[in-house]
Amino acid sequence: MPLSTRICHTRLRVRYAETDASGITHHSAYVPWLEAGRVEWLREAGLSYRDLERQGYNLPVVELHLRYVAATRFDDALIVRSALSDLRSRGLRFSYEVVTDEPHPRQVANGMSRHVCLLGGRIAPLPAAIRRLAEGGEKREGA
Amino acid sequence: MPLSTRICHTRLRVRYAETDASGITHHSAYVPWLEAGRVEWLREAGLSYRDLERQGYNLPVVELHLRYVAATRFDDALIVRSALSDLRSRGLRFSYEVVTDEPHPRQVANGMSRHVCLLGGRIAPLPAAIRRLAEGGEKREGA
Amino acid sequence: MPLSTRICHTRLRVRYAETDASGITHHSAYVPWLEAGRVEWLREAGLSYRDLERQGYNLPVVELHLRYVAATRFDDALIVRSALSDLRSRGLRFSYEVVTDEPHPRQVANGMSRHVCLLGGRIAPLPAAIRRLAEGGEKREGA
Amino acid sequence: MPLSTRICHTRLRVRYAETDASGITHHSAYVPWLEAGRVEWLREAGLSYRDLERQGYNLPVVELHLRYVAATRFDDALIVRSALSDLRSRGLRFSYEVVTDEPHPRQVANGMSRHVCLLGGRIAPLPAAIRRLAEGGEKREGA
Repeated sequence: MPLSTRICHTRLRVRYAETDASGITHHSAYVPWLEAGRVEWLREAGLSYRDLERQGYNLPVVELHLRYVAATRFDDALIVRSALSDLRSRGLRFSYEVVTDEPHPRQVANGMSRHVCLLGGRIAPLPAAIRRLAEGGEKREGA
Repeated sequence: MPLSTRICHTRLRVRYAETDASGITHHSAYVPWLEAGRVEWLREAGLSYRDLERQGYNLPVVELHLRYVAATRFDDALIVRSALSDLRSRGLRFSYEVVTDEPHPRQVANGMSRHVCLLGGRIAPLPAAIRRLAEGGEKREGA
Repeated sequence: MPLSTRICHTRLRVRYAETDASGITHHSAYVPWLEAGRVEWLREAGLSYRDLERQGYNLPVVELHLRYVAATRFDDALIVRSALSDLRSRGLRFSYEVVTDEPHPRQVANGMSRHVCLLGGRIAPLPAAIRRLAEGGEKREGA
Repeated sequence: MPLSTRICHTRLRVRYAETDASGITHHSAYVPWLEAGRVEWLREAGLSYRDLERQGYNLPVVELHLRYVAATRFDDALIVRSALSDLRSRGLRFSYEVVTDEPHPRQVANGMSRHVCLLGGRIAPLPAAIRRLAEGGEKREGA
């Protein structure tokens, strides 16, 4: 996670609906968790994904990579640790760790998602508010 | 299912992702199955839900009722039997049976969904193509 | 919600994965929310659903009823208000309201789920810890 | 897809529940599709994943990689093309292409999943029935 040292922590509990017949969390359940993680990351950076969409922007996932390190189970308390790990003119990448919500967290999964920027459905430069994140260490207030 | 005697049969297999840690199909998985059932019902009636949406229509679910009669499991072959069971000027209702895909089908669930008709986001009369379904027994061709 | 006046409040945010192409939250997304609500309700009553399962119990959903009162959207902050609304020897029912997480909450959905009690896969009396909830107003400590 | 030239074709239609507020199929929806693809692949090889589980085996996903090449939408008819692409003593890998179900299919996504073999919850050699797939080009009957 070279670009940004800021890591957003999103807490969640494994829902019963997210488990499968082998008794553990289904691997597909992690995908919306990462999404919740990057939405919170953006919010903490002062950016609302909902507002970006209202302005006509979308950041669809073009690549997804997940490694499942240890099984998780129903009702486990977990934390998604999200960080911006690459920022290009027309796209970005987030990196993630999913860890147990314990005094000594264990990593249970890690991954990344790569996104392109669409404006009105066409590839476009990222909005200035996002490009600024790379300059000056994500300073949001004048500072 | 009084209104329409036509029943649409939609075949599916329980996906592993649709099971839960108790070893059976999670109750939430049936909800998209019913949806797939009514989409097929409409298609067989000559109506594409995708086209309806392009014309500005939506048929959001305003009520959902499901009874789970018998557990189903990963890889079970099932059939959703869907029928239009009520048709009003600004809404409709579908009824469903989920049965095993066997020579002697057993019912595993049944339910209904009630929908209102929206046009451009506002409650509106159902499109003529749907209203016609109630008249003359869904005759699509001159007959 | 006659039986129990205790209401458990479970906070959540609508995930992007829970929306659909009509721009609102898909109706199936509410089903796991209700589940998260009753799991929290049990936890607040001193009962871990995970522990119940370890003891061989299951409380599968045998009936589900949902009314969708108002559309919700991505990133909406919501509260599931859950309460035990019926308790029989071999089953129980939860009732739910989903409201906006605002100073003046608006109801967006309501519903109920009915459950039977299984022990080792067979219908059985509810565990004593749950039956006690109906006696003496859910007093957990000696009081 | 070097190991096995056999490709299993699994047909599906994008469910409305699988779309999101940006109007396209949500990226998480593809994950259960790949799973359905490999389950069918195994079935065509004479192996029932359900039976493997009954024998105590599991093939949990330890790595998942997806590239989203083109957006898909509600009601799109798609085919998952699945193939076994690596086979080790204690694990295997499947590779996938998702293409449109058209006379001239277009690729909309591709990916891979890597699995370890568990027997009774512990890493174990793959069952003989799977190991045989690598020998003699998956010949199932004496031939």
